[in-house]
Amino acid sequence: MITVLSGGVGAARLIRSLNLVMDPRDITAVVNVGDDVLLHGLTICPDLDTISYTLAGLNNDELGWGLAGETWRVMQELRHLGGAAWFALGDRDLATHLYRTQRINEGATKTEVTRELCEHWGVLTRLLPVTNDTIATTFDTEIGPLGFQEYFVQHHHDVVVHAITVQGAKTSTPTHEVRSALEASSRIIIAPSNPLISIDPILQVGDVRELLASRRDDVVAVSPIINGAALKGPADRLMRELGHSATSVGVADFYQGLAGTLVIDEADRELAAQIESRGMKVHVTTTVMANPDHARRLAQVVLA
Amino acid sequence: MITVLSGGVGAARLIRSLNLVMDPRDITAVVNVGDDVLLHGLTICPDLDTISYTLAGLNNDELGWGLAGETWRVMQELRHLGGAAWFALGDRDLATHLYRTQRINEGATKTEVTRELCEHWGVLTRLLPVTNDTIATTFDTEIGPLGFQEYFVQHHHDVVVHAITVQGAKTSTPTHEVRSALEASSRIIIAPSNPLISIDPILQVGDVRELLASRRDDVVAVSPIINGAALKGPADRLMRELGHSATSVGVADFYQGLAGTLVIDEADRELAAQIESRGMKVHVTTTVMANPDHARRLAQVVLA
Repeated sequence: MITVLSGGVGAARLIRSLNLVMDPRDITAVVNVGDDVLLHGLTICPDLDTISYTLAGLNNDELGWGLAGETWRVMQELRHLGGAAWFALGDRDLATHLYRTQRINEGATKTEVTRELCEHWGVLTRLLPVTNDTIATTFDTEIGPLGFQEYFVQHHHDVVVHAITVQGAKTSTPTHEVRSALEASSRIIIAPSNPLISIDPILQVGDVRELLASRRDDVVAVSPIINGAALKGPADRLMRELGHSATSVGVADFYQGLAGTLVIDEADRELAAQIESRGMKVHVTTTVMANPDHARRLAQVVLA
Repeated sequence: MITVLSGGVGAARLIRSLNLVMDPRDITAVVNVGDDVLLHGLTICPDLDTISYTLAGLNNDELGWGLAGETWRVMQELRHLGGAAWFALGDRDLATHLYRTQRINEGATKTEVTRELCEHWGVLTRLLPVTNDTIATTFDTEIGPLGFQEYFVQHHHDVVVHAITVQGAKTSTPTHEVRSALEASSRIIIAPSNPLISIDPILQVGDVRELLASRRDDVVAVSPIINGAALKGPADRLMRELGHSATSVGVADFYQGLAGTLVIDEADRELAAQIESRGMKVHVTTTVMANPDHARRLAQVVLA
């Protein structure tokens, strides 16, 4: 049994890669909910949805997010009405949010709804929201405070960030299932997700950081930074803006005390010694999961 | 300036008829919100939507409800997910509910959102929810307590009703705009909507019943019962089940003290004397708005 700390796209790809080399039933993903958003009254969980859609093979490859075969009738009408249509919700995707919101209003937890949706889609990997409490990652930026999706989608993460706060994290607790997974897994993998806005909100929930630190020797992180840049999203820019080095070394420093091993890309091989000097083991491989061979090799490395 | 107490379909048709003979800007509809429902986290106002869709010429004639040119992608997906799909929400229609819910979450009132939507659709008649407070018409039935839409849609109003309660009505207040309309209109018309579940919830809000009683001589009701039957919906059945006569006379009794005049259909001409004996004026005309001529004539009668 292994556990993967997960954001959205990078984590979805890593889990899909792990599925190539092990039984998906033996994988638990502990998923960030700091970017969950209430829009139009609907509870939307972008990271949980990205992972479940991807593992179900329903992901939209052209867009890089959302569902395949999507249509946009509701959004077209909402735009006509002058509604807040900056967060694109496809018609198929909306059904997920209607289902989740209705079930939550009926008293179900996010954990339960996630299980129901995964069962429906035949997703065998166990997806667990890190907490059933409400947490919200927010940004103090050059244009004022922004909610996660305002920063990420409405402003295309193209504003300078001064600070990131995970509202509600201090009083939140990881679910029983998350705690058990973190305690019982033979290996804990930190996915190549954004350290600051995907992984850190998970770490800030209750005592997750302490739980992880106590498992340090079994924790393997995959660097989302390759050759000083993020494959996707604002990880490099945010690292710089918040005083970190936007390199694999910066990632190593960020996970110092939590991860015993860092997996970095071939392009960063020359940084291995610097990272090892910080007391962290290093594995060098191709971390870009561009084809099934690379994906399988990365999976084998993080499990080795 | 005239005011129409309004449920859904019957009221929408009457207002459309009135628009044929007077300036729509001089009509205010005070609309029932007792059948509003929170579904999937969305605030749905069926009566307001039925009227605005109809007046905008966007109503779906084949279905008798909802929007023309509707598609059902979201509902299809929701059904696949095993979600609560018994209340059919079209893709176009959903945009209305997303818009309304988002605006309400932003702090707008139902009154404000209704005005925005009507402006967007070019609806010139002023639609006013009777209250911005939450009220909910509920049913005590042979199979237990049911919410409005559970009774009406999920069970096709095909269960015996023992009692109807409008939750929250006692502590609710009509909006300032509704109060002004009821006080200042030269005529107040009670639409041929269901007396028990469309009009009564309006009357139960704050002091609306007293306001109406004080205007009795200017209040004209149109009977929704013709020859002992409702044109549409369960009005006749509910009248019987709750101890009223399911006739125009029963309607007259129900509006006793509130309406000085009742308009009844040609088919009920023989009941006119009985109604007059209760101190109510009676006008007899064709109340079925089956074609523009009949519609115009009914409008002229209620305005005369």
